[in-house]
Amino acid sequence: MAECQERAEAALDHRLPPAAKLPQKLHEAMRYSVLGGGKRMRPMLAYATGKALGLDLDRLDGPACAVEFIHVYSLIHDDLPAMDDDDLRRGKPTCHKAFDEATAILAGDGLQALAFHVLAHDPSMAVSAEQRLAMIDTLAVASGAAGMVGGQAIDLASVGQSITLPELENMHIHKTGALIRASVKMAALADAGISADTLDRLDHYAKCIGLSFQIQDDILDEESDTATLGKTQGKDRDNNKPTYPALLGMAGAKQKARDMHDQAVAALEPLGANADMLKAISLYIIERRH
Amino acid sequence: MAECQERAEAALDHRLPPAAKLPQKLHEAMRYSVLGGGKRMRPMLAYATGKALGLDLDRLDGPACAVEFIHVYSLIHDDLPAMDDDDLRRGKPTCHKAFDEATAILAGDGLQALAFHVLAHDPSMAVSAEQRLAMIDTLAVASGAAGMVGGQAIDLASVGQSITLPELENMHIHKTGALIRASVKMAALADAGISADTLDRLDHYAKCIGLSFQIQDDILDEESDTATLGKTQGKDRDNNKPTYPALLGMAGAKQKARDMHDQAVAALEPLGANADMLKAISLYIIERRH
Repeated sequence: MAECQERAEAALDHRLPPAAKLPQKLHEAMRYSVLGGGKRMRPMLAYATGKALGLDLDRLDGPACAVEFIHVYSLIHDDLPAMDDDDLRRGKPTCHKAFDEATAILAGDGLQALAFHVLAHDPSMAVSAEQRLAMIDTLAVASGAAGMVGGQAIDLASVGQSITLPELENMHIHKTGALIRASVKMAALADAGISADTLDRLDHYAKCIGLSFQIQDDILDEESDTATLGKTQGKDRDNNKPTYPALLGMAGAKQKARDMHDQAVAALEPLGANADMLKAISLYIIERRH
Repeated sequence: MAECQERAEAALDHRLPPAAKLPQKLHEAMRYSVLGGGKRMRPMLAYATGKALGLDLDRLDGPACAVEFIHVYSLIHDDLPAMDDDDLRRGKPTCHKAFDEATAILAGDGLQALAFHVLAHDPSMAVSAEQRLAMIDTLAVASGAAGMVGGQAIDLASVGQSITLPELENMHIHKTGALIRASVKMAALADAGISADTLDRLDHYAKCIGLSFQIQDDILDEESDTATLGKTQGKDRDNNKPTYPALLGMAGAKQKARDMHDQAVAALEPLGANADMLKAISLYIIERRH
């Protein structure tokens, strides 16, 4: 996993505009927000899916970077004063704190465009034009109003509201789940000969870890501290945001995360040892401390 | 031209999420900002390019909508308090005034994703996967840090600065020129058999009208009034933004706009009467009052 993380860092660095290129402040802000921090969960999922399918990892650098660019742009915009108004992200000042709000808005916008440029263009992917298009459409739908952006809108509307468990899950399925599923699906689409059954199994895995990821995030927001998290602890509770521990109790939330992990691992069974890294990521998700 | 404008309105409406679909506020904000206003310059350019090449206009609805979604998202974000802080756009309250800042940020983000979804997916385009990819990459580069977003960053950095004419042109080439060129190029890419010479000529046309469009915008910012413009008049001057009339004088700016129009029309000469709508758009750009 550490090897894939290093691979992701290098691949991201290589695909970002150089800091010295004009307009410098914009490029610095994009690089500042993407590089030097983050668990790289989504790139790791793309690489791990490639491993599960026996693909050359070079071919996954494009999808891995594209999904991370989308993820980082969403963090930059989410942290803005008009949204979550957060000062700390990945242990550093948020983009609008380190630069300014206008630059943060533009850096996020530029990262979204870069994600689609990478998928349309990156020569290392070695896929057909049809495969690229399928990846682009997967990412566009997952990140747009029917996916991540829609989830953020549901999240904003639910602050301070009392919502049910199905409503909470619907929010997370859109807000974080869609992009996690896209990480796995884009990598799977790089395999031109993948069976419908394998694609379904990988997607079921991704749905389960998307939920366990969010449950663990909510648990950590209660149990961890700001220094370990690299972002402000207790923020969701302070904002009166609905969380899994609030709805299920802490023990119930932990049990649900474990159930999701078990389901995720079970879905991968026919892939055997090739899927070990995907299984390890699922376990990491529910055991992580930040 | 009126026919193409109606076509654009219907095509945009058809591709936006329904207002009744959850999350409603997000979808309402996207529809509010896109529909019911705007000159539809970029869709018109896509359709007019299609006419110049003898293409069925149905095939241009996708690129026409994609480029307009990008344009509208950039207006929404540009109007935010942290950017230009404008209350009026297309004669209506700006998105963050009619809704709220968070919704405006998300509506813009969602429109950008929708643009790429349309290009990757729209069945009416009837082009090969390779042509779609070329359109997607054209739009991603034109709208990202090397294009429109980069131009906005240059614009922000130049407020209150004394800049030269080449610096001013460099800003506009990125900020508005890149997307105008992309409108023409994406439509041209729908013609699988287009010659390199015709592509070059169309691109030269698009470069010229990109500049004349901006010059006329600067002229109107001085000469028109808020009611006619549908946005706050005198804003650029008040913000100490560099403009063509400030650098060239009003007569010099008008002459330059006319020169650009003449060059644009000259580039289209071999296309004959098929290019009449492109020529009419060029003339409209320098004669418009808003």
